[in-house]
Amino acid sequence: MTGSGLAFQITGRDGEARTGRLSTAHGAVETPAFMPVATYGAVRGVAPDELAAAGAQILLANTYHLHERPGEEVIAACGGLAGFTGWRGPWLTDSGGFQVTSLAEKARVDEEGVTFASPVDGRRRVLTPEGAVAIQAALGSDVAMVLDECVPSDPADAARVRAATERTLRWAERAARAHQRADQWLFGIVQGGGDAALRRTSARATRDLGFRGFAHGGLGLGEEPERRDAMIATAHAELPGDAPRYLMGLGRPGDLLRGVALGVDLFDCVLPTRHARHGVLFTSQGLLRLKNARYAADDAAPDPACDCATCARFSRAYLRHLLRAGEMLGARLASLHNLRFYLGLLERARAAIRDGALGALRDEVVALEARDGSG
Amino acid sequence: MTGSGLAFQITGRDGEARTGRLSTAHGAVETPAFMPVATYGAVRGVAPDELAAAGAQILLANTYHLHERPGEEVIAACGGLAGFTGWRGPWLTDSGGFQVTSLAEKARVDEEGVTFASPVDGRRRVLTPEGAVAIQAALGSDVAMVLDECVPSDPADAARVRAATERTLRWAERAARAHQRADQWLFGIVQGGGDAALRRTSARATRDLGFRGFAHGGLGLGEEPERRDAMIATAHAELPGDAPRYLMGLGRPGDLLRGVALGVDLFDCVLPTRHARHGVLFTSQGLLRLKNARYAADDAAPDPACDCATCARFSRAYLRHLLRAGEMLGARLASLHNLRFYLGLLERARAAIRDGALGALRDEVVALEARDGSG
Repeated sequence: MTGSGLAFQITGRDGEARTGRLSTAHGAVETPAFMPVATYGAVRGVAPDELAAAGAQILLANTYHLHERPGEEVIAACGGLAGFTGWRGPWLTDSGGFQVTSLAEKARVDEEGVTFASPVDGRRRVLTPEGAVAIQAALGSDVAMVLDECVPSDPADAARVRAATERTLRWAERAARAHQRADQWLFGIVQGGGDAALRRTSARATRDLGFRGFAHGGLGLGEEPERRDAMIATAHAELPGDAPRYLMGLGRPGDLLRGVALGVDLFDCVLPTRHARHGVLFTSQGLLRLKNARYAADDAAPDPACDCATCARFSRAYLRHLLRAGEMLGARLASLHNLRFYLGLLERARAAIRDGALGALRDEVVALEARDGSG
Repeated sequence: MTGSGLAFQITGRDGEARTGRLSTAHGAVETPAFMPVATYGAVRGVAPDELAAAGAQILLANTYHLHERPGEEVIAACGGLAGFTGWRGPWLTDSGGFQVTSLAEKARVDEEGVTFASPVDGRRRVLTPEGAVAIQAALGSDVAMVLDECVPSDPADAARVRAATERTLRWAERAARAHQRADQWLFGIVQGGGDAALRRTSARATRDLGFRGFAHGGLGLGEEPERRDAMIATAHAELPGDAPRYLMGLGRPGDLLRGVALGVDLFDCVLPTRHARHGVLFTSQGLLRLKNARYAADDAAPDPACDCATCARFSRAYLRHLLRAGEMLGARLASLHNLRFYLGLLERARAAIRDGALGALRDEVVALEARDGSG
């Protein structure tokens, strides 16, 4: 299901953590890596050359949203995501299952797939495992994801978690059978909620389906970090050690570093861009909340220690003003800064793994975060 | 009322049209020039370095909006507009009168000034001629405008137009008396609606108040282009020939070229950025309406003849998609393109004046526009 030209090479280790190189048809990704979220094929307000300058290597787009608008046939006609958008490097597409069930009204999940009313035109849509593979093949992403049924950890409803985990496996098998593109990775998704035995079963069965890349699903949905760590470690014990691992949708800087320490290779999260739009900046000194009146006439850079294009040219006072006035330049500049923070954090993680110092970096970041409160 | 360090030098002529150099405390502006509108101190979505690369020389900010948010005291504390924003070059600020009377509910104009309820906090505000000068002094703009009472041409209510024109003159006198900054231009504003005699009186009286720069107010509000041209020419016959002239708030490319041919030196308009946000692009072949389905999979540059950063990297199909999806990158990229069109148009106008070919350029642009319909 994945062509032989695609490879994942592990280049260094520090405990469970590792550095690696993920090869794709549109270039290589040094891991562990953070993938900025470009839902509709664009990071809100930020241009591709700016993302590259900030250290982005691979972007994440949303299969479901692109299927709705502009439609995969438009993107295929323009040369796939790398031809259609201005980002010529690697793209990962999520399968859309999470968005369908969380965004669409009256979504219904059955064995066939997900049935829902399109929020764009209200018409009935069915997303199946085979359909999600076909859409992603047309989008021409470098990493495709299987359609999964994502359910959070819920000890009170073990039967539901088990049923969704088992259905995800049956869907994964159908997706693997449908997948044809030799130039595209297809990752399986491990589910199992917060139940270690179920995670273990899910990981083992997903591995046995022959996937060469894997994701952790259903995490970052409110569970305790310690439980999440246990779920990740349990799955990793079953997954092939030389396959790339992706922790979907997480999270705060400390969450990423915990994942890196456990051997996760890929991350994505909307937090840096969403926080940016709300005027919350990640800095070397912790979170900086621009809405605080103390920054009204503060002409210092958002983070004097930061090397991003925003901090080089603009002040806290100006960013605060733009965000309060609803000027889109504010969201753009703040997003670029926060993405640089995340991308720089993963650069530091890769360097720390090479130096055998990842544990110290993780502890430093987690401690800084604790000082900030809930973020 | 204007320091001797400020100068306007005419460098070339073609009929009534002229090229010139407007010197300000933050640099010189080659005229005729178009000023991108940065209402809150930022062009929506577009960064200062991009504006400079597109050929912008001077930006226009709104006194009234900046007074409401963040307040002129914040901007003054950060070094004025050139220190507060990322645009270190010249700034022009309009006086705010037009916005106050058009945006604020229950605005009341009397001899003292304009009284209105703030749309931000609902509190009562009074904007006087002296107050507008003081706010602009604090903002540190390079060109300040007097507070005027802006009324459109209305033959059915000649008394109202006359009263507003006369009040504008009394306010201009108060503004000139209040103005202190030797490093800031203060422009008077000619009113008079569509009445040539009233325009003549207004221009003469404004000149006699000693202003060294002038603006045409109350135009571009629905009158016929021929009448507007007549109003401009009538005023120019009374104004000092060596003073800069600014046509406020206009307009389409043909409107600008008509103004240039009449000897106008400065222009501003929200049209390029507003059109951009609505997916209407100015191109060498006329208007391109991106919402048209024919562009859905069109991977050509928006204008293959354009040298802007958007056309170098992005397709019609991608821009169309971003705008339809409400992705702010779309508005940003389209705005940059349309601004480059306007700024490039004025570059061509300056070159045409030097070559004695402005009439041909004006006719070409007006003809292209006629083909597009109402725009």
